[in-house]
Amino acid sequence: MDKIPILRMGAYLLVTIQVDLYDRLALNLEADLVQMVNKTSAKGVLIDISAVSIVDSFMGRIIGNIASMSKILDAETVVVGMQPAVAITLIELGLPLKGVHTALDMEKGMNLLKSMIDSTEDDADEDQTADDLITE
Amino acid sequence: MDKIPILRMGAYLLVTIQVDLYDRLALNLEADLVQMVNKTSAKGVLIDISAVSIVDSFMGRIIGNIASMSKILDAETVVVGMQPAVAITLIELGLPLKGVHTALDMEKGMNLLKSMIDSTEDDADEDQTADDLITE
Repeated sequence: MDKIPILRMGAYLLVTIQVDLYDRLALNLEADLVQMVNKTSAKGVLIDISAVSIVDSFMGRIIGNIASMSKILDAETVVVGMQPAVAITLIELGLPLKGVHTALDMEKGMNLLKSMIDSTEDDADEDQTADDLITE
Repeated sequence: MDKIPILRMGAYLLVTIQVDLYDRLALNLEADLVQMVNKTSAKGVLIDISAVSIVDSFMGRIIGNIASMSKILDAETVVVGMQPAVAITLIELGLPLKGVHTALDMEKGMNLLKSMIDSTEDDADEDQTADDLITE
């Protein structure tokens, strides 16, 4: 198994991490995900880590990387299902996952993604209107 | 890792199988899934096996079991993302996955589930109407 499947659901991509992310697997996931975002014009990426009970600095960095990569391709990333012990470890490792949005479970994550995407679109509309109105 | 995460998405449950289903894991999945169907009143179960490249008779039977168990709890099961080689192996093993609905990918599977659930509800409505109308 050297690939983590990426599921497409409309404008979202869903990734469930169930195995330890060793180097090659993590790099494959990064590459696959970026390609999928590009190919499907996805607006959001949902990463479920509810099966991950042990986390290290490598995995923390990978999640941060994926979020940053998606962001510059105009897709938001939400990490869902983090176990309390994982949250403790991440903070103790000094990895507060900056720039990564989190939600308690899949449904809340999906709602968060939807609201973020809607507000981005609203902002874009507002900016345009503001540009039209500014005459200074 | 002795559990496969089950994600809830509204009225559906989503399971992504990424690892080999050995005995204990498969039995845990069966038990967890039946409990989740019961707890969440899910109407549909989507099993993604796109990461499964090798299948044996045990795994074929487990998928059949899950579908049968869900069915008697009034939830439909759709298996998505089967690799061509897996389909070949299943047929050669004499496991045509009877009673299991399949779809090519996640989106098609979700649509199939929706249409199945809608038609079940319509049938129920029709039966009721028919019962009301029959006066013989």
